[in-house]
Amino acid sequence: MAVDLLGGDHAPAVVVDGALRACQADPALHLLLVGPAEAADEIIYALDPAEHGRILRLPVAPADGVKADSWVESGVRSAVLAVAQGQADAVLSAGNTGATVTSAALGLGRRPGVRRPPLAAVLPTGAGRLVLLDVGSSVDPDEETMATHALLGAAYAAVVHGVAAPRVGLLTIGTERGKGDRLRRALPPLLAGLALPAGARYVGLVEGNDVVSGAVADVVVTDGFTGNVLLKGLEAAYAELGPPDPAAGPPPPRAALLLGVDGTVVVCHGAASGADVAAGIAFAAHLHRRAAVAAMADLIEAQRGVSR
Amino acid sequence: MAVDLLGGDHAPAVVVDGALRACQADPALHLLLVGPAEAADEIIYALDPAEHGRILRLPVAPADGVKADSWVESGVRSAVLAVAQGQADAVLSAGNTGATVTSAALGLGRRPGVRRPPLAAVLPTGAGRLVLLDVGSSVDPDEETMATHALLGAAYAAVVHGVAAPRVGLLTIGTERGKGDRLRRALPPLLAGLALPAGARYVGLVEGNDVVSGAVADVVVTDGFTGNVLLKGLEAAYAELGPPDPAAGPPPPRAALLLGVDGTVVVCHGAASGADVAAGIAFAAHLHRRAAVAAMADLIEAQRGVSR
Repeated sequence: MAVDLLGGDHAPAVVVDGALRACQADPALHLLLVGPAEAADEIIYALDPAEHGRILRLPVAPADGVKADSWVESGVRSAVLAVAQGQADAVLSAGNTGATVTSAALGLGRRPGVRRPPLAAVLPTGAGRLVLLDVGSSVDPDEETMATHALLGAAYAAVVHGVAAPRVGLLTIGTERGKGDRLRRALPPLLAGLALPAGARYVGLVEGNDVVSGAVADVVVTDGFTGNVLLKGLEAAYAELGPPDPAAGPPPPRAALLLGVDGTVVVCHGAASGADVAAGIAFAAHLHRRAAVAAMADLIEAQRGVSR
Repeated sequence: MAVDLLGGDHAPAVVVDGALRACQADPALHLLLVGPAEAADEIIYALDPAEHGRILRLPVAPADGVKADSWVESGVRSAVLAVAQGQADAVLSAGNTGATVTSAALGLGRRPGVRRPPLAAVLPTGAGRLVLLDVGSSVDPDEETMATHALLGAAYAAVVHGVAAPRVGLLTIGTERGKGDRLRRALPPLLAGLALPAGARYVGLVEGNDVVSGAVADVVVTDGFTGNVLLKGLEAAYAELGPPDPAAGPPPPRAALLLGVDGTVVVCHGAASGADVAAGIAFAAHLHRRAAVAAMADLIEAQRGVSR
């Protein structure tokens, strides 16, 4: 697992903390620590010497004349390249979303038809779990990008949550005809005509409250601006008040998977805690072991074949 | 109080229920029931005959050849005109937001500088109460409209919540420079340069979680699409899990005030319950008795005078 030590508002401290927690929780986990050597060494020193073989360092040092932002972004770029070159199986970053998405799109390649890879988050609901996408990659998306979110989100719910025939809804502000902004008014015919993978079906317009109940959709499609705002609002509410269905077990990790790229890239919020980073690393490891990214790609390819 | 009996997904039944509850809870309340005579009669029959003097009817009947939508919209138009003509002090509608905003803008008039009147909702937070606007009036707003939201929201927090020097934030998806969509990237310099009323100040970018905590802003400005999605999501979470600070007393009504028009217009969600409608009516009566709309207009005019 390649971990971007420089990404996040409180990097490298919380990333060091999170990586250490993840290592201790999962004895099979190996980490490639990408960033300043001294931050990586903190993790190594905290581990039993018998465990040192589980840690590799990929030092990224500030070069002369390079701005701080570029230096930080070179961290996630190096982490993505480590996956592209087979040195790591997946990437975890809490850094700038735009830099991570761009690095992943260039370094790992986008799946056919994917213009802007979306970030898919999972929220607990009264009915289980719900996939919300995009949560920050595609601001000002066009219609084709939103339609691709629907395809990718359906595959995610089928593969990662094991949902048979996922219900896909479009997030808007009222279910009467003509409600919503320009983008939302244009989208329903396009979404209704899509051939979705995994037996998924488009169930029409949904609203903010449907993301809490989970009663009408398993996948909710929106632009990255609205999705990010709603995600951060609901996550904060659940952190304060508990999840909508406490009987449903531990809440999902506060981390999002980048969809539509050829590799496992998990993103935490910039304000993520050490526990969030640890959960994000564990989630990335889980997805890799399940070969989830390849399974999603296969589902979408299979649907493409049928539709042709 | 003019009540639009035809507005809402479950009209007139829930509006009848809500109007009756409001009447029973507040003996000083008089209602002008706008809509089908038989719905109004249900309320009258349910009241003690000694109370019948508190109810007036303004029948709105379907005309031949008029579509159902137009008939429903004529209800809110008639209710707004009753206020414009002095037959009522305020309006409550759970109907189509667009029709209500347009009726109010035309029937009551917009305040100077207000292009699109925003709807301001109040959310409970960990720190008290927070004004979120717009929550459904201005989809695809321009920069000037968003700046007007900031002025109106500041006046609202000062007058209705008694906040001295309200803190006004712009809702976005990350506080680094360059985050957000086109609109959000363009707005900060404009908002920072505004002369806000009531000693309010622009505090910069805020995120979804800040709407839950209430720690950094008293007023959060956004477009009507994002605001509506976040409002419905958080309201549903709080309805399920309780408000962020149970010690803060009863949660605010799930109703929004239309700002920037010359009159008191309160809007409930289309999916409002009878209890929500009753709370909306009580809220409108409270605002009218406090002369809140005039006080907000005065604050903004006073600031205009200073800024000239």
